[in-house]
Amino acid sequence: MTQDDRRRFLKSGAAVSLAVLSASGTRIASAADAVPPAAPAKSEGATRTLAEYVVNARYEDLPANVRKEGTRTLLNYVGVAVGGSHSETIDRAVAALGPFSGPPQAGLFGRRERFDIMNAAFVNGVSSHIFDFDDTHLKTIIHPGGVVIAAVMALAEYKPVSGKDFLNALVLGIETACRIGNAVYPNHYDVGWHITGTAGVFGAAAATGKLLGLTSQQMVWALGLAASQPVGLRESFGSMNKSFNPGRAAANGIFAALLAQQNYTSSEGMIEAKRGWANTISTKQDYREITEGLGTRYEALLNTYKPFACGIVIHPAIDAAIQLRNENKLTADQIERVDLRVHPLVIELTGKKTPQIGLEGKFSVYHSVAVALIDGAAGEKQYSDKAVRDPQTIALRDKVVATIDPAVKAEQVDMTITLKDGRKLHRFITHAIGSVEVPMSDAQLEAKFADLADGILPKEQARTLMGLCWKVEQLSSADQIAKAAVARA
Amino acid sequence: MTQDDRRRFLKSGAAVSLAVLSASGTRIASAADAVPPAAPAKSEGATRTLAEYVVNARYEDLPANVRKEGTRTLLNYVGVAVGGSHSETIDRAVAALGPFSGPPQAGLFGRRERFDIMNAAFVNGVSSHIFDFDDTHLKTIIHPGGVVIAAVMALAEYKPVSGKDFLNALVLGIETACRIGNAVYPNHYDVGWHITGTAGVFGAAAATGKLLGLTSQQMVWALGLAASQPVGLRESFGSMNKSFNPGRAAANGIFAALLAQQNYTSSEGMIEAKRGWANTISTKQDYREITEGLGTRYEALLNTYKPFACGIVIHPAIDAAIQLRNENKLTADQIERVDLRVHPLVIELTGKKTPQIGLEGKFSVYHSVAVALIDGAAGEKQYSDKAVRDPQTIALRDKVVATIDPAVKAEQVDMTITLKDGRKLHRFITHAIGSVEVPMSDAQLEAKFADLADGILPKEQARTLMGLCWKVEQLSSADQIAKAAVARA
Repeated sequence: MTQDDRRRFLKSGAAVSLAVLSASGTRIASAADAVPPAAPAKSEGATRTLAEYVVNARYEDLPANVRKEGTRTLLNYVGVAVGGSHSETIDRAVAALGPFSGPPQAGLFGRRERFDIMNAAFVNGVSSHIFDFDDTHLKTIIHPGGVVIAAVMALAEYKPVSGKDFLNALVLGIETACRIGNAVYPNHYDVGWHITGTAGVFGAAAATGKLLGLTSQQMVWALGLAASQPVGLRESFGSMNKSFNPGRAAANGIFAALLAQQNYTSSEGMIEAKRGWANTISTKQDYREITEGLGTRYEALLNTYKPFACGIVIHPAIDAAIQLRNENKLTADQIERVDLRVHPLVIELTGKKTPQIGLEGKFSVYHSVAVALIDGAAGEKQYSDKAVRDPQTIALRDKVVATIDPAVKAEQVDMTITLKDGRKLHRFITHAIGSVEVPMSDAQLEAKFADLADGILPKEQARTLMGLCWKVEQLSSADQIAKAAVARA
Repeated sequence: MTQDDRRRFLKSGAAVSLAVLSASGTRIASAADAVPPAAPAKSEGATRTLAEYVVNARYEDLPANVRKEGTRTLLNYVGVAVGGSHSETIDRAVAALGPFSGPPQAGLFGRRERFDIMNAAFVNGVSSHIFDFDDTHLKTIIHPGGVVIAAVMALAEYKPVSGKDFLNALVLGIETACRIGNAVYPNHYDVGWHITGTAGVFGAAAATGKLLGLTSQQMVWALGLAASQPVGLRESFGSMNKSFNPGRAAANGIFAALLAQQNYTSSEGMIEAKRGWANTISTKQDYREITEGLGTRYEALLNTYKPFACGIVIHPAIDAAIQLRNENKLTADQIERVDLRVHPLVIELTGKKTPQIGLEGKFSVYHSVAVALIDGAAGEKQYSDKAVRDPQTIALRDKVVATIDPAVKAEQVDMTITLKDGRKLHRFITHAIGSVEVPMSDAQLEAKFADLADGILPKEQARTLMGLCWKVEQLSSADQIAKAAVARA
């Protein structure tokens, strides 16, 4: 398993301890001053090149598969943002900010309050990360959707924009965040930054700057003001501060773009300059990741969506359990025992045998396999406090036996279910559902969305909302989506 | 000259090139993972210790000299914030944010607009840094006043607070920002961070959290949310983005405190934890700077105020010129020539012989000495475009001869003025006015204030405003200061 694989698999639900990452977290002698002085001509700097690309890129230039993946990212984002909207985290944020918000310019997903666009973007960005169930750009572990879409959706309610232009801005925002992330990953992440908020802020600035019609010079300044406002440390994982980060990055990006629109200046090369963002915040800088293949290679195509509300390391086992359950119409009472052969990390990170609260369930491969067999799902509901205390679930999880097998890769699992009637069912998973190799289908994304919206929006409204997401490109005004995502009075 | 001296003297007006700092900017092998695991008990961590100190510290505990210096910092802050309030930078920021601001809770210094407290704190924080004429904690080059006071003053307009409590919060905010700065300076600054915004945000959070009456636990969270929102890179110096940094740090600090007040959580030890702020953002961490001597040693006492609106490196020459001018009632037409023996840095940084615009005048020891001899001052007016083109000034600056003398320290100057009548006037400056050793007098602070407010507030209002600052401890409500600092309708 490479270091990169390790990082991805460690990436998990609410609160995986990242202590095991320490070995790779050592900062080495910095390139801050060893960076070739290079002094590229103004027009060649990464900041300027990226700014000009974003300003000039047209919807018509987007390949069909990119438009499609951007639309899937949108649908997934809306689902998770609605799903998190009634958490205690959001209740507290709304209580704190309500008295200070500006005009009711943009709705809070799943709720009735309306805030000014920056405060709304903050709340809707936080919402999307509550369950750690949002999209993931696996190359960098950035969750681009929450930052970028929270920002452009709030702005779209204030300043009307066609669905086509909206989708274009969304894709450009993801492109900006992920390319800048690529340039500094993994060193930047290893040292302690929550890259979703530190690289994400550029995506929010670029996407909203695009919708505001910034000139190239203004876009350079917007990126500079974004560089001045990185958000988030990994140390905050396990607290409400984790979800804070994409939300604040969304708001900061809008703040940067609005100032730049009024010609509030920044420096020319804030990303790549000697004392700029990348040199200050990371010991690795590869600016080709930012500038090469713009308009031909799209990071949006590498975005993935989690099918299960827990760390990726257990996803293969859940996938196997659901497949065998569905194919054989299994019920819990038929099952004698479940044997798993797993990569060592599965036990290291998710070996909790008797979880007591929902959050602990996310760190139990035993609980996860049990709920997958019983419910055919592993969403937020399957990780509630009630779920981990359910007698039937407890009885089944006690029948799950996991054995370490170093020959099994981290993205794999080997599962054998022995039934009471003596039959043995076997499944080997090479890549779990939700990976780049085996992406979630549109129908699976819809099922995830419906599950998240259940209890928050009426079923019919949820269906309408999904429909609007799918046909974003045909909408005359993208704010129809935001309008359909709020609770009705 | 030590590296530290060098840094301080490099610290300058609007746009000193910091390129010469490069030699000291190299990041060395990080302590991020070499940090002793230590795992102090919860109550011993720097974040918790600092939070408990801030929550429990009372106005009555402040020594008289600390109250006095806090009051001087307040007066200086109000002056520079009023002075910068009609700059193009502020006009653009106000135009950008006006449509999104919340209720008119707090005034913009020197202006008529009222914004919600976070947007007002942003603008008033930016204002204070426009001329780079604000206070300086020389140990760290932090400008604590702009960040901390912009935040507490805006909050004081929303939530009434006595002058005593206001001053206490102000001092605690400075304490917090500067102590955290001490813990990571100089490595943190050298690598590229604008420490005023990265350490300052903690000061704004602590000071506003104090006024909000946070519990210790909430204060820990406020500091954690502040740690997640560092602001500013040195690369932005020379653009409007520099002034942006203290303003945004002020707003971010309030944002953190408001959320914490609603029990929006963060981690326990965001400053000192292994993956916390100090390890992520710096290669040096000395937590004793944060925790030792709380309540007995005050960073506020180390705050200084610039008498002249230019880089500190020219201050000795200006000081000498003004002293000789005033003592001898000199006029420009009496002067035959002016000879200076100066430290090499004076020529390196401010050797511009024929400045064409006001900003260039700040990098000309010749222009600076000329205006000091003519006007007895070197404030913003003496660095206007008009001032550098004034024929009398040009004639006199051409008579100034500066010679490098390595025996002269950076904080010194040796000046000899030869008069047309043959007399020679001599002055050797050991420490210029405005240093810790030779602080500005209250009267000098008032003169600076009056000069900054001139043309923005009526003279009588400026006098009233100064009076309110001096007697802050007797005010029943601190918002009287803010109310007196805005333009009348």
